[in-house]
Amino acid sequence: MALAYPHPHFLLSESHAAVDPPTPMGSATVSPSTVSLTQDDLKRIAAYKAVEHVKSGMVVGLGTGSTAKHAVDRIAELLRQGKLQDIVGVPTSTKTYDQARSLGIPLSDLDSHPVVDLAIDGADEVDPALNLVKGRGGSLLREKMVESVTKKFIVIVDESKLVKHVGGSGLAMPVEVIPFCWNHSLKRLVNLFAHAGCVGELRMCAENGKPSVTDNGNYVIDLYFERDVGDLNEASDAILRLPGIVEHGMFIGLASSVIVASVSGITIKTKVGSEVEVQSFCYSELIS
Amino acid sequence: MALAYPHPHFLLSESHAAVDPPTPMGSATVSPSTVSLTQDDLKRIAAYKAVEHVKSGMVVGLGTGSTAKHAVDRIAELLRQGKLQDIVGVPTSTKTYDQARSLGIPLSDLDSHPVVDLAIDGADEVDPALNLVKGRGGSLLREKMVESVTKKFIVIVDESKLVKHVGGSGLAMPVEVIPFCWNHSLKRLVNLFAHAGCVGELRMCAENGKPSVTDNGNYVIDLYFERDVGDLNEASDAILRLPGIVEHGMFIGLASSVIVASVSGITIKTKVGSEVEVQSFCYSELIS
Repeated sequence: MALAYPHPHFLLSESHAAVDPPTPMGSATVSPSTVSLTQDDLKRIAAYKAVEHVKSGMVVGLGTGSTAKHAVDRIAELLRQGKLQDIVGVPTSTKTYDQARSLGIPLSDLDSHPVVDLAIDGADEVDPALNLVKGRGGSLLREKMVESVTKKFIVIVDESKLVKHVGGSGLAMPVEVIPFCWNHSLKRLVNLFAHAGCVGELRMCAENGKPSVTDNGNYVIDLYFERDVGDLNEASDAILRLPGIVEHGMFIGLASSVIVASVSGITIKTKVGSEVEVQSFCYSELIS
Repeated sequence: MALAYPHPHFLLSESHAAVDPPTPMGSATVSPSTVSLTQDDLKRIAAYKAVEHVKSGMVVGLGTGSTAKHAVDRIAELLRQGKLQDIVGVPTSTKTYDQARSLGIPLSDLDSHPVVDLAIDGADEVDPALNLVKGRGGSLLREKMVESVTKKFIVIVDESKLVKHVGGSGLAMPVEVIPFCWNHSLKRLVNLFAHAGCVGELRMCAENGKPSVTDNGNYVIDLYFERDVGDLNEASDAILRLPGIVEHGMFIGLASSVIVASVSGITIKTKVGSEVEVQSFCYSELIS
């Protein structure tokens, strides 16, 4: 880890967790230019900040991906230290299940725990209304199953994930499809978004050159948009109405808040009704 | 086959196929009471009538189930007799694939033939607007994939399948779900239709006592409704929005026409705009 300062552990201090009122970014006494933070450091900082919201006794949805992995590590660490107790984790992928199990986090699933208190997960894109694109890691379906029944869903990202609109990063919006006639499904999906300059491709597994297979035995079609797709709820329904489509990677209206870590500090975006409140903290504030 | 008269082969006579204008049922000179028709005879009669619409050179969607099986048999027979040529069949299940292949029908799929000229399939329920419930045989997803891209979809049923509203038979409306946390999905589905007195159960395989698995590796949850579910399009979207749901057995607005075989004759219900035109023929008309 290239992080020298600030070490993310500082974020766990109870007294520092409730910095209020926020002051504008840029008032930092520690210049960002003096800090060497990798993208992975930023992911870890966001993850550790989110884990402050985990309380003993909670059922916690455990996300999947390089950012969420840090949250799972941190929850396990706090359990080992006795700072958290009676946590039940609900993993969103077999990969996270394996990670959490190896770390000794007690695990369950939605059949036994149909209501989740808090879920923490990364995202591939976050738009200004906190709509997300998820699933580039291939776990969008189980993630959506868990995160659609959680009381609070905290999204953790580094600043590179912020976009003006879904698809705006130029990277994939994944769609999980049944393998049967996937090429037909691909064409129907692309036709659906012709107005947005959509192209699509089957996701392949780099290791074996075969189609990438999800935890549920399905394939993934990656859609790319040249332009804004328009109304996301309409787009969602149109996709889901196509037979052969299992789920898509747009998480619309599910996030409660998004923690964004950047080299200059942390921004917390919180859904309040139909509005999004933004609080920004520079690292000096969080440790002073 | 218990059918003595009329033999369904009569339905294939070109001259009889275009009976026009229809005359009311009951004008039969052959009394229904003199005819011994089993339910399977009625299925066969409806199927043979539908196959009259298959023309040489067509791409034909081949349905699944005890009624559709007769249509596949008949298409193969006409191919063997040279009365049909250059047919490409698109089967809607592995079962139908096996049947059609063993009968020598040339087969393809939606990847190669994304547009289907005509599909013929049975249904478990048909409502007055020609909305269907399908999938008690477990093939609803592939059936819907094929039948949603067909230029003409002819449904073939015996009269026992007519209902006042979807679910009105008291039998199952099947929903294909991913196996992961199926019990959670079951509860969410049932909650969705609490207003209709919905109950649900996982479909089990009678042979091995394990969950029944679809061609796509998924499970089936059978929903039962005490009362009308209301707007079907709304119900469809609500189901499809639940993550973990792959497809449901309501086929809304897909049928072009429905051929209903009863002991007294054949009724053909045809969609004309938003209306349904009904023509009824007694068997004596069709053979006279």
